[in-house]
Amino acid sequence: MSDKITDMDVFFNPKSIAIIGASETFKFGYTMTNYLLNSNFKTYPVNINKDIIFGHKVFKNINEIPDDIELAIIVVKNENVLQVVKDSVKKEVKGIIIETAGFAETSIEKLVNIQKEIEIIAKNSNVRIIGPNCVGITNFDNKFTTAEIDFNQSIEGGTISVIAQSGVLGNIFVEWSASQNIGFSKTITLGNKVDVDEIDMLEYLENDPNTNVITVYLEGVKRGPKLVEILKKLTKPVLILKNGRSEIGSKAIKSHTGSIAGNDKIYDAIFKQYSGIYRVNNFYEMFNIAQVFATQPLPKGKNIAIITSSGSLGILACDEIERLGLKLAVLNDSSIQEMKSISPNWTSLKNPVDLGPSLFMTFSQSLKAILNDEGVDALLHIFAVPQRPIKEFSLPITPHLKDLRNLSTKLKKPVITCVFGSRWVVEYFLKHSYKYKIPIMAQISHAIKALKFMYDFGQSNKNINKNIEI
Amino acid sequence: MSDKITDMDVFFNPKSIAIIGASETFKFGYTMTNYLLNSNFKTYPVNINKDIIFGHKVFKNINEIPDDIELAIIVVKNENVLQVVKDSVKKEVKGIIIETAGFAETSIEKLVNIQKEIEIIAKNSNVRIIGPNCVGITNFDNKFTTAEIDFNQSIEGGTISVIAQSGVLGNIFVEWSASQNIGFSKTITLGNKVDVDEIDMLEYLENDPNTNVITVYLEGVKRGPKLVEILKKLTKPVLILKNGRSEIGSKAIKSHTGSIAGNDKIYDAIFKQYSGIYRVNNFYEMFNIAQVFATQPLPKGKNIAIITSSGSLGILACDEIERLGLKLAVLNDSSIQEMKSISPNWTSLKNPVDLGPSLFMTFSQSLKAILNDEGVDALLHIFAVPQRPIKEFSLPITPHLKDLRNLSTKLKKPVITCVFGSRWVVEYFLKHSYKYKIPIMAQISHAIKALKFMYDFGQSNKNINKNIEI
Repeated sequence: MSDKITDMDVFFNPKSIAIIGASETFKFGYTMTNYLLNSNFKTYPVNINKDIIFGHKVFKNINEIPDDIELAIIVVKNENVLQVVKDSVKKEVKGIIIETAGFAETSIEKLVNIQKEIEIIAKNSNVRIIGPNCVGITNFDNKFTTAEIDFNQSIEGGTISVIAQSGVLGNIFVEWSASQNIGFSKTITLGNKVDVDEIDMLEYLENDPNTNVITVYLEGVKRGPKLVEILKKLTKPVLILKNGRSEIGSKAIKSHTGSIAGNDKIYDAIFKQYSGIYRVNNFYEMFNIAQVFATQPLPKGKNIAIITSSGSLGILACDEIERLGLKLAVLNDSSIQEMKSISPNWTSLKNPVDLGPSLFMTFSQSLKAILNDEGVDALLHIFAVPQRPIKEFSLPITPHLKDLRNLSTKLKKPVITCVFGSRWVVEYFLKHSYKYKIPIMAQISHAIKALKFMYDFGQSNKNINKNIEI
Repeated sequence: MSDKITDMDVFFNPKSIAIIGASETFKFGYTMTNYLLNSNFKTYPVNINKDIIFGHKVFKNINEIPDDIELAIIVVKNENVLQVVKDSVKKEVKGIIIETAGFAETSIEKLVNIQKEIEIIAKNSNVRIIGPNCVGITNFDNKFTTAEIDFNQSIEGGTISVIAQSGVLGNIFVEWSASQNIGFSKTITLGNKVDVDEIDMLEYLENDPNTNVITVYLEGVKRGPKLVEILKKLTKPVLILKNGRSEIGSKAIKSHTGSIAGNDKIYDAIFKQYSGIYRVNNFYEMFNIAQVFATQPLPKGKNIAIITSSGSLGILACDEIERLGLKLAVLNDSSIQEMKSISPNWTSLKNPVDLGPSLFMTFSQSLKAILNDEGVDALLHIFAVPQRPIKEFSLPITPHLKDLRNLSTKLKKPVITCVFGSRWVVEYFLKHSYKYKIPIMAQISHAIKALKFMYDFGQSNKNINKNIEI
């Protein structure tokens, strides 16, 4: 990979765009073509076989476009990609995103060689190239995307950015995040990485004012020492999912993006060496933890309070707290008395505070009592309730969320809610809690791990530069 | 706990029922009262303060009911429970479910002593008692329930049964399972276990023709040697979630149901000693794996094939396969050729078979080719797709599921689908796959663990006696 420094910004905020291989019939590239041609981004379709696409004049070649082009997006067949790259270089574009697959990952000599030629072009010209075998960039801040997604108004952004290899996943992340109210700033897929790699993007995201948390899915790294150097320098929290831990997984990586997985133990050692870098086990864990980093204040200590409607789930949380070296907060007598005054005699008010079904009546006040307790650094709220009382009797479950958020922000104590229940209950919570930036997740283990990473991050010399107001 | 043997069936199929503390206003017991009084189960409401509930005559005392009563369900206040138990014994009921909480789990001497007195009554009479501090039984086969759930037509049953302690969770399981299409036969919550315990219920479920898989959430066991004895004898697969692994978790168990957690290492050793007993880490894992046991044939070997639209997720699955000691199947050349004839040149057709976006066109035929391959014992199908092509272009994704199920049953090879995508995509799949009994889950690690447990179970001398036809 080249060490030349070029501003990555052309990939996120291009002033003019050509889509080469633009399509108005259903095939790869259709959704992006449709979206960009109907957007405010100045976009020119290029296709040798078409005259009009979605009502726009089509150019046979990028060099026929009577305008400067900053970014070329390539979705033509793999055998035509090399020529189109050469055309784009001639046009003096600043960036190219090659989305087409079918190169080094196939291990077919002819296709591997095409990729090598493109790599040489990237080295010997001023152009920066993302791909091939990816879906490029989605920027939630200005709603620019080269991915095959329906990027409409309903997808809310946030401050988490993701770097990944896989094209298909790049599309799914965006749709999935919309379902889960995970707020992204940028999603980036790099594919086979002939030129631009995760190191370029880590540097970009470190300086991006809209990114507070960086998540990385890694298959293999070509510039190892450079990666170590940048990891050392980063001031933002980074969550890394690295697969290929196994021998058969490493072999599969070769067929996926033509990358070499490398020795997993070395990666593990590197990730552990630098504060602020955390390894996770799967995508759900990655994004659940990222959500906590993105929205919650850092805990000042290790003392976790649990408030739950299910004693069993409270105990599962205790097991995780001990396993990760955190502590169960010892509640002040006055906090317990405050809760006792409003609770039935059968509730268990030691930490974990188990309100059982009385939770419907008492949890709002109990949450505040606990959060105000000086012995508490962070609060896990486990909400396992049947839907009937909420749905049929309209029991007020979420009106207190704004107060809770204000208190949490004021006291600098993170709050996480774990919800276990019917789909209706989960969606009810997601809908109401999102605007108050209280992260919702299904897995208790992810919540506790998030608090552990947040605590560690707070102990490091790093800082999250973010606005956690509502 | 008493060793006397009484038929547990009275709890699942009572011929006549009294609800003591019946309510028609919103409080604990309301939903059950409403449901049972309007059902075909012969139910009598008892409440000292009421004359009519939901149009039914109310009795002041169970002994005023001019009919034999088999099952008494108690939801009165904790201080009134002892007298009501005595009344029920006088009425010669066969079973009592005490749902009221506020006994040994409070550590308040007076309340602990009430529980002890109830325990003595159970020992010295012929009645069997479940609880206190639980929601009792839900039987999906005859739609009988003592839980606070809206048990309407829309909840489909299945062959998984669950034994748990916690009352709140007992309600949630049912609602959650309906959302996820997890098919239950019986759900049982035991609370503080003054009499009936998990050993009684394991014996019952072992002999229950509608239960194929037993799942147990365990906090503490009072009859340790008996548990070991029954675990040794069971022929059905058992998945156990035991919490209180940690010191602080063990303490929390005491406040939850007054149980003693016991030394976790001893449990772990016992669970590992007997084939067919598998320990899991959380409820999602428990029910996802149970679903596979309940619906899929046992794999004959360790060779797993993966077909995926996302190379990255395929690699994560490879890592799990190696970690759990399974093998990645080596595909026959003829299977690869069969797929090659219908696939674009850029797809990767070695196992894991990565079809990328071409999956929309080719996966139905590819799934069959792989399942027919003699080197394949089980199939993991990772479905990560954007929703737009399915929703807007109505791409046919699920019509082949019936063929797939038939082939899987015929060849005795299990199939699991992991879906990663928007909520719409997940629900689309759930809706279509349920009738063909192909388990759907989000977590790849659960799918691989299910295949590992299924393989181990197949190697044991145990057998699942089940009908796996559609």
